[in-house]
Amino acid sequence: MEKFFRLLKQDKRSKARLGQIKTPHGKIFTPAFVPVGSQATVKSLTPQDLKTIGSQVFFVNTYHLHLRPGEAVVEKLGGLHRFMGWSGPLMTDSGGFQVFSLAKKKDLVKVDYHGVHFTSHLDGSRHFFTPERSIEIQKKLGADMMVAFDECAPYPTTFEYARTAMERTHRWAQVSLAAAKSQGPQKQFLFGVIQGSRFKKLRQQSAQLISALPFDGWAIGGVAVGEPKKDMVQALDWVMPVLNKQKTQKPVHLLGVGEIDDIFAAAERGVDLMDCVMPTRLGRMGWILTPKGKDFKIDLNKNIFTEDSHPVGDDCQCEVCRSFTRAYLHHLFRAQELLAYHLATYHNLYFMERLFDKIRMSLKKNEWDRLKKEWLSKQ
Amino acid sequence: MEKFFRLLKQDKRSKARLGQIKTPHGKIFTPAFVPVGSQATVKSLTPQDLKTIGSQVFFVNTYHLHLRPGEAVVEKLGGLHRFMGWSGPLMTDSGGFQVFSLAKKKDLVKVDYHGVHFTSHLDGSRHFFTPERSIEIQKKLGADMMVAFDECAPYPTTFEYARTAMERTHRWAQVSLAAAKSQGPQKQFLFGVIQGSRFKKLRQQSAQLISALPFDGWAIGGVAVGEPKKDMVQALDWVMPVLNKQKTQKPVHLLGVGEIDDIFAAAERGVDLMDCVMPTRLGRMGWILTPKGKDFKIDLNKNIFTEDSHPVGDDCQCEVCRSFTRAYLHHLFRAQELLAYHLATYHNLYFMERLFDKIRMSLKKNEWDRLKKEWLSKQ
Repeated sequence: MEKFFRLLKQDKRSKARLGQIKTPHGKIFTPAFVPVGSQATVKSLTPQDLKTIGSQVFFVNTYHLHLRPGEAVVEKLGGLHRFMGWSGPLMTDSGGFQVFSLAKKKDLVKVDYHGVHFTSHLDGSRHFFTPERSIEIQKKLGADMMVAFDECAPYPTTFEYARTAMERTHRWAQVSLAAAKSQGPQKQFLFGVIQGSRFKKLRQQSAQLISALPFDGWAIGGVAVGEPKKDMVQALDWVMPVLNKQKTQKPVHLLGVGEIDDIFAAAERGVDLMDCVMPTRLGRMGWILTPKGKDFKIDLNKNIFTEDSHPVGDDCQCEVCRSFTRAYLHHLFRAQELLAYHLATYHNLYFMERLFDKIRMSLKKNEWDRLKKEWLSKQ
Repeated sequence: MEKFFRLLKQDKRSKARLGQIKTPHGKIFTPAFVPVGSQATVKSLTPQDLKTIGSQVFFVNTYHLHLRPGEAVVEKLGGLHRFMGWSGPLMTDSGGFQVFSLAKKKDLVKVDYHGVHFTSHLDGSRHFFTPERSIEIQKKLGADMMVAFDECAPYPTTFEYARTAMERTHRWAQVSLAAAKSQGPQKQFLFGVIQGSRFKKLRQQSAQLISALPFDGWAIGGVAVGEPKKDMVQALDWVMPVLNKQKTQKPVHLLGVGEIDDIFAAAERGVDLMDCVMPTRLGRMGWILTPKGKDFKIDLNKNIFTEDSHPVGDDCQCEVCRSFTRAYLHHLFRAQELLAYHLATYHNLYFMERLFDKIRMSLKKNEWDRLKKEWLSKQ
């Protein structure tokens, strides 16, 4: 049987690398972008749209699906793939991040040795998540890749709290591995989460411990939680050397990242997968990703676009850019028309996938440095 | 040059008929359904979606586009077809209906000999529409078919008011014809509107007068304004015999109709075109059109659909029905996901187009009665 992860090529001058992840629902070539489909849909797009865009995989939130419609419903309907009509690779998160960030009445979120008590942001009902429970839910959802339940400490936090949360995450990692051992008919791969907040000692310790456990992949959590960009990169500089020197290489997922410069910073350090709501959320707000915009984006809500007959993006071959002007999208956003959100989301994800195409191609052709310079000089 | 309207076949036992409308952007086979794209978009669908669905033409609201983005912007960007990326036939209405139904502060809507003063529902700004102005705007928008500015009397109204409104509509019809005489590079066909509310004498008088003027087509207005169904059919029974006996036949458009039973009633009396927001609006509310539902629809918001693995509609070959279950759409509507509105709208318009396919086929094959009975017995 082909391995879950194959390192196809290691860049000579950086830690960037080409890889391949093999799941029961197909392959993912890495570095790869992972769009977010929180509630079992990448907002405003059909699975067919995602295929046309070239998305290889996407992320569904365990927290959201547990609350609505419930994992039992999804299981009854044949699992997430059938439920959503998506036949490609799929990933669920552990629910940890949402439990801490979305739950109502933050003072009612109680973490203990076993798990987290929290209140639904939908109806105020009380819930209890444990690592076993998270795995149980994720098994019913049936994604190709799962994530072990972790405690994502807030930013900033004290060394003491970060250590406590990390230790809990490590204990839960073991519990998750045990819970994931019994597998259903279709293999589900499990990622362990590295925490440690902005503390070097903890980050390195977490990377050591998680990478020594028999996970299928490694995820880096506790970033994209409001910290300055340099702190995210700093965390990578502590964690990635530990992971990169492991004898058996496993895919590395950076949770919740990133923006364009973050993507280059992460890929250069050896990160293989990155999920982020940026392109989809920005799109719904009227922001269009383009290499020519400041910070790679322009705000189509602005009046200067009222009569702009330029295609939506720049040098883009997507269906949206081939069919519509900035003026039309500006009008649709002004009129709050549903089509606006669809077209902007489509374009933005297309933009991201073409960027990752270029990243992989540059690694193949030993042109990583050139590509990175070309993109980062645009800012 | 081929004629604008050709009567292809007249049903033997009813007044139903097959026809063909030829516009600069292609042909429309009638009876035809005309979806509504109020603000220069059929809500949540791309032009490509409409092509795949088989929509032959759609309706854009002059009132909406005048207020936002303004006809000057649309003209600058090459007219409505280029603005929206739609290459097929297109129709604009006169703005009359919206002026009376949507304008803010109804007491500030002032109708006089020349036109209507009204207040924008968007920003409260004051506007003045006349028949000349409506044609001027519609010329800048550049649709293939335009409608003459009319006064749509409220329902119910007195005979006196209905007569006054009708007489104004007739005067404005002449003004509109004169204004439309000077044509741009691309021919735009003009429909005159028949009014007269629920009064036989007025309806017949209006049908006589409008059909005697050199319009390209005839529209029936003042229906779908809140009257009982039987009043709409009654109006048709007064108007259609007048139109049907004209020597030169022209396409007849019934404004704002209809539901499934209305469609059969109208087509049977010789109506060729019907626009209605029903399938798109119902779709966004979670209602799915299906031959097996009560009144041809089911409400997917209901809890009974939580675990329903049945395709969205019944006996439907559309992409939505081939890919998704009722349970998934139920979930998307519960979660207020954008994809819900898109999928339901797509299916509902697909349903309507297949119904009109069947209507045209039944006329071709002399099976109109059979088809009508089959559908109306389902209710």
